Amino acid sequence: MIKIAILGFGVVGSGVYEIIRKNEKNITKKTGGQQVDIKYILDLRDFPDHEEQGLFTKSYDDILHDPEVSIVVEVMGGLTPAYEYSKAALAAGKNVITSNKELVAEHGTELMALAKEQNVNYLFEASVGGGIPIIRPLNQCLAANEIEEIYGILNGTTNYILTKMVTEGADFAGALSEAQRLGYAERNPEADVEGYDACRKIAILASLATGKYVNWRFVPTEGITKITRSDVAFAEKFDAVIKLIGFAKIAEDGMVNIRVCPMVISKTHQLSDVNDVFNAILVKGDSIGDVMFYGRGAGKLPTASAVVADIIDAAKHIHINKFITWKKSEKDIMADPGAAVMRFFVRADSEAVIKDFAGAEDLGHEGGEWFFVTDEMKEADFVAALDGRGSFIRVLS
Amino acid sequence: MIKIAILGFGVVGSGVYEIIRKNEKNITKKTGGQQVDIKYILDLRDFPDHEEQGLFTKSYDDILHDPEVSIVVEVMGGLTPAYEYSKAALAAGKNVITSNKELVAEHGTELMALAKEQNVNYLFEASVGGGIPIIRPLNQCLAANEIEEIYGILNGTTNYILTKMVTEGADFAGALSEAQRLGYAERNPEADVEGYDACRKIAILASLATGKYVNWRFVPTEGITKITRSDVAFAEKFDAVIKLIGFAKIAEDGMVNIRVCPMVISKTHQLSDVNDVFNAILVKGDSIGDVMFYGRGAGKLPTASAVVADIIDAAKHIHINKFITWKKSEKDIMADPGAAVMRFFVRADSEAVIKDFAGAEDLGHEGGEWFFVTDEMKEADFVAALDGRGSFIRVLS
Repeated sequence: MIKIAILGFGVVGSGVYEIIRKNEKNITKKTGGQQVDIKYILDLRDFPDHEEQGLFTKSYDDILHDPEVSIVVEVMGGLTPAYEYSKAALAAGKNVITSNKELVAEHGTELMALAKEQNVNYLFEASVGGGIPIIRPLNQCLAANEIEEIYGILNGTTNYILTKMVTEGADFAGALSEAQRLGYAERNPEADVEGYDACRKIAILASLATGKYVNWRFVPTEGITKITRSDVAFAEKFDAVIKLIGFAKIAEDGMVNIRVCPMVISKTHQLSDVNDVFNAILVKGDSIGDVMFYGRGAGKLPTASAVVADIIDAAKHIHINKFITWKKSEKDIMADPGAAVMRFFVRADSEAVIKDFAGAEDLGHEGGEWFFVTDEMKEADFVAALDGRGSFIRVLS
Repeated sequence: MIKIAILGFGVVGSGVYEIIRKNEKNITKKTGGQQVDIKYILDLRDFPDHEEQGLFTKSYDDILHDPEVSIVVEVMGGLTPAYEYSKAALAAGKNVITSNKELVAEHGTELMALAKEQNVNYLFEASVGGGIPIIRPLNQCLAANEIEEIYGILNGTTNYILTKMVTEGADFAGALSEAQRLGYAERNPEADVEGYDACRKIAILASLATGKYVNWRFVPTEGITKITRSDVAFAEKFDAVIKLIGFAKIAEDGMVNIRVCPMVISKTHQLSDVNDVFNAILVKGDSIGDVMFYGRGAGKLPTASAVVADIIDAAKHIHINKFITWKKSEKDIMADPGAAVMRFFVRADSEAVIKDFAGAEDLGHEGGEWFFVTDEMKEADFVAALDGRGSFIRVLS
């Protein structure tokens, strides 16, 4: 019997409870015969209507000092006290499972090292892509590959908004309101629409792929708040859609070109069909070529099912570290973003601008703005040539 | 240091050798510091130009009786002697890794049970989907889900042929020749075009998902040899394409409705865009909803990279069984295929036939054949109503 404690009884925490109760038999089979049982649920709030009142506690010490608890499930979110709790649990020789991308992106290096030291595991499948299996495939299934590139649609809220703008001609504000009404976007949508959520996720994936900590603070990040209906309409003329993409390209020397930004994507590209709240992540390995993982990137049960998969894995490796780790690193692994070569979708202030871009494809004009797509060029050269005479969106090649 | 032996130095075997030699450092890191080294390569043929002659042997006994060898990589294909060799290796307490779908589909139950008994592993990620991670995600990442459905494009050769028929208007024979010329189809293409390869693969996936052996012999299997240019053209009128699909639907009582057949797929479906030699597998779980895995389903390095991922996993679990297993089972878990409910794409002998199908969608006629799509109905009822007055293709819903 494996005893676990759930920290935080919010959306994901209650989903974890639900799945463990519902699929108990199946879970026991998957661990090789060990039953997984919930001993505590930590939450400061009361849940007077819950049928298992005996599980709830407001004291983390109860959990930390109970030697029976071998797995702590941190689904509180935020850095404090999730960080302190996770660290204390690992130091006490307990496995920690999390869905907390903010914490993994900030303190993952330290927590994984501590887990290794203690011969336990710090697992975080649910931190990226919700229920989509990506952390384990990247770490295990693609282990024989040198990862060259990872890119994808990592945030469901922004993908929902952009899908509405493309398919229904909504503007950003209208699509955001609709997303909020449906519960896909929070009242304060900044973390999603400004790209901060996607930024944490691509930083985690890049860290795993390179084996070195990619600090999310160094990831140039732009959200989708400036995308207009005209952008969407002119992208359509280019037979393309606009998506918020996180990408990391890893050069042979290990340098990482990483960014979160809206991108223009040809309709022939697999990612162009990933709509609504779905996520998809493409990984390019030297042996395997392109593989794509697609599914629901958020939501109570999808995310909780990824957490429970980690619980099962930890139950099978209670005192065996699984070597998920990356090393400390500073800005020295970050490639110059200006050196990236791609095409650019431009919204220019005047008709004259296009003449400065040899080989550009004219898309037409509207309301005093001229739209065109450049040939492939270095970002630094492009920015210098545009010289502030308009705005632009990068094109995914 | 983990010593391995490779049985069979064909396409996959030489790929495994290549990846281990090339990514040695990365592989050692992934195993947690243990170097993986090739001690033997078994092949009856000579490879006089190979730079490491010392590795080659023609005697399996050398490998079997060498206590240093803890992992045997069976990439010979076929049932004999792969079965005998695998069994002997497991009985001797060695881990066995395979890409051999035929063997897994036939003797997997026994070999996994033997591995469990011996506290070693029998791993077969490369047997389905080539390099696409699917066995491990299904077994581990989706472990918290009851799997309700698995379906996908499991064979690259037939997908290449059908892609040519759709995009270039080729007929079956012409597309097959082209596939053979490019090395995508074998001289004797029967295993691919008749669906036998996809049949083994969906049987393996269904066995994993249900935990009970789904015998490939019980899987109704149709290939693509009867698909005509007219089918493709009329499917286009229905805004759909034709793909060879393997599917397994698992009812709540555990009964499996499983089949391999060509299917008409709406262009709005994710699978409709999976072209050329690519494979894609959709899994529907009760918590996670739909997830899709997409990538190269065959080829030397993609397949070898899945084999090497299993080698790394085995190296980390040399004497710990990973509980990948399914139980013996007979025909009692097979649902009645006639009870499946779906729409049918019909090529009828006469105009009168459509009148017997209420709610059918008329697609027009050509050369004495009438094309239409029925409403949803039970397969048995449909077959009775059609009464041999034409042929049909099932529609994926």
